[in-house]
Amino acid sequence: LNRRLATFGTTIFAEMSALAARTDSINLGQGFPDTDGPEEIREAAVRALRAGHGNQYPPGPGVPELRDAVATHQERFYGLTWSPETEVLVTTGATEAIAASLLALLEPGDEVIAFEPYYDSYAACIAMAGATRVPLPLRAPDFRPDLDELRTLITPRTRLLLLNTPHNPTGTVLTPDELSGIAALAVEHDLLVVTDEVYEHLIFTGAHHPIAALPGMRERTVSISSSGKTFSYTGWKIGWITGDAPLVAAVRAAKQYLTFVSGGPFQYAIAEALALPDAFFTGFREDMRRKRDLLATGLRAAGFRVYEPEGTYFITTDISPFGDEDAYAFCRALPERCGVAAVPNSVFYDDPERGRSQVRFTFCKREDVLQEAAERLARLG
Amino acid sequence: LNRRLATFGTTIFAEMSALAARTDSINLGQGFPDTDGPEEIREAAVRALRAGHGNQYPPGPGVPELRDAVATHQERFYGLTWSPETEVLVTTGATEAIAASLLALLEPGDEVIAFEPYYDSYAACIAMAGATRVPLPLRAPDFRPDLDELRTLITPRTRLLLLNTPHNPTGTVLTPDELSGIAALAVEHDLLVVTDEVYEHLIFTGAHHPIAALPGMRERTVSISSSGKTFSYTGWKIGWITGDAPLVAAVRAAKQYLTFVSGGPFQYAIAEALALPDAFFTGFREDMRRKRDLLATGLRAAGFRVYEPEGTYFITTDISPFGDEDAYAFCRALPERCGVAAVPNSVFYDDPERGRSQVRFTFCKREDVLQEAAERLARLG
Ligand SMILES: CSCCC(=O)C(=O)O
Ligand SMILES: CSCCC(=O)C(=O)O
Repeated sequence: LNRRLATFGTTIFAEMSALAARTDSINLGQGFPDTDGPEEIREAAVRALRAGHGNQYPPGPGVPELRDAVATHQERFYGLTWSPETEVLVTTGATEAIAASLLALLEPGDEVIAFEPYYDSYAACIAMAGATRVPLPLRAPDFRPDLDELRTLITPRTRLLLLNTPHNPTGTVLTPDELSGIAALAVEHDLLVVTDEVYEHLIFTGAHHPIAALPGMRERTVSISSSGKTFSYTGWKIGWITGDAPLVAAVRAAKQYLTFVSGGPFQYAIAEALALPDAFFTGFREDMRRKRDLLATGLRAAGFRVYEPEGTYFITTDISPFGDEDAYAFCRALPERCGVAAVPNSVFYDDPERGRSQVRFTFCKREDVLQEAAERLARLG
Repeated sequence: LNRRLATFGTTIFAEMSALAARTDSINLGQGFPDTDGPEEIREAAVRALRAGHGNQYPPGPGVPELRDAVATHQERFYGLTWSPETEVLVTTGATEAIAASLLALLEPGDEVIAFEPYYDSYAACIAMAGATRVPLPLRAPDFRPDLDELRTLITPRTRLLLLNTPHNPTGTVLTPDELSGIAALAVEHDLLVVTDEVYEHLIFTGAHHPIAALPGMRERTVSISSSGKTFSYTGWKIGWITGDAPLVAAVRAAKQYLTFVSGGPFQYAIAEALALPDAFFTGFREDMRRKRDLLATGLRAAGFRVYEPEGTYFITTDISPFGDEDAYAFCRALPERCGVAAVPNSVFYDDPERGRSQVRFTFCKREDVLQEAAERLARLG
């Protein structure tokens, strides 16, 4: 393993999921649902398979049906228009979209500003690109970005802002004001923006506003989303980017050598998923809102301090009521202590001390599972 | 697009497939079959989907069933034993395996020796890793490596040999003697070896000998293979690597940030495919041998000089009988001239002049399609 990746041995999600499996715990660590998405979408994948749609290499940018559906979806929800031919690129989930965007757009030595805590692949991909990460802290209890602080972090080497809204792990959803302020700085300093919006349909407070829609942003923004979180088929790994044609062409140049293409038949199924009626999207969100409230109540009853998320399917908690143990040690012990697995936010900070009291739980599980988890956590006290 | 990738705009496969589609030509460029693989494997994917196997994130290294099947397959065909737990990693096709291996194992400034002509992603991934490629020429008409020449290319900066056998595009299959000679040099100079063996079951002359089986090689070799070529489901993109645990762990560290995981349900189907009886593998090869002979005959009749491939499903030809046009210009004009698309080998050389008279055709198509292509090509003369 080379020096750049030396500190990125195993993702925390794999580590904690393996621990959950070994201890037969309820896994509230890695974010994936325990119930598959709509049956009709699964059957759309079956139909594609049997019709021979996508069983051989799909076109490099993705099958036309899915590119059309992505463009239509962005127009329907946000009024954004993209050419399915040149401004949409299908990827192997958001993970590949992030890797390809950073490997395509960064030169060695460039600086990238990203919210801290960071989703783990951001730091690894910035390192693979030979660039440097610069954290913009989202601080408890509100986890809001400070735009004056952002301004001070921008240097002549800053090339790119890496945004994430709704934000994993904190659940922060950027407001229109915050987005405008960030956009103004990006325009003023001629920065690229890569924005990870995979939880776009999981917002409980506020609404999703794609930064690409703001003045001056279209030509500098790569927007990333994915089907895994919205349609509950995380194992299919169908994601996409949208952006101006030159940016999409650049990302595609890197992407074609990372996987070439993937998931042929699933691309057709997700094209159908994106066209589901509004009732699907609101139903999914309201279901998740109930689950959020259920888990938040359970966590509070068990003694955690809860930071209520505006979006995503994660709750960040403060574990200081349980003593001075750091989050990583807490999460390694938690399965043995009570049969529940979680993820320590500390690993998402450059300096783990800054996240030493933060632990993340997901609520994308059946209500009976969340109930049982709450009962188990209550034994901690 | 950054400077490293500046010369890697669009893969030649995407370019020529798009041209074929635009001109309604028979596409003998990009290597993918026009007939899907075994129905029972497709139905295994349907069963996995409906049983909810792999619809959510599979484990990072791949589902246990597929890792077991990969290990069993290598033992059955080559007598190699690998631990499914630590020595097998599932990837998004061979493409991701190549990218992850090179991004994990190379430091900026390292030199990588690879056969020229190179499969295009090799050069791009070496560039993304900040390393330098050093070509070991395979020269017409025999396309065999010269081990004395290999020795002269090794410098103190050489870190890795990137092998490919059966070799795309030339069809060369390394002999046991060549493999021993290469292995001896790798051991002598303490080099890593990454070997792309995706055509392991498509050998018409000689047999496949994994270099990982030779003395001193196990601890320094990452072996790459894939299901796409062997089972004719190229759109599913299920590949894998095998190697000693520390090498596999290193590649996994990079791979987890490129895609995390992919193709959940397909992993179960390919586990079943790898266990198909010998008759499947020999039947597939003999079918492809007939197709090779059919296309070779057609190409010769049309005036091409044919370099008979020992393996892969490609035939490299010499186009000098048709005049002095270079291969790229020839391939751009070919669809208009006669309704057949091909790939210019020139793009697989550092200096395109070295491949200016070489054009590659695939024969992984139905016999009637190959017959029709031969008739169309006959009009060229
Ligand atoms: C890609 S694995 C982890 C899933 C996820 O996004 C999370 O748990 O934060
Ligand atoms: C991965 S796209 C091209 C398929 C292939 O391996 C080839 O045509 O050489």
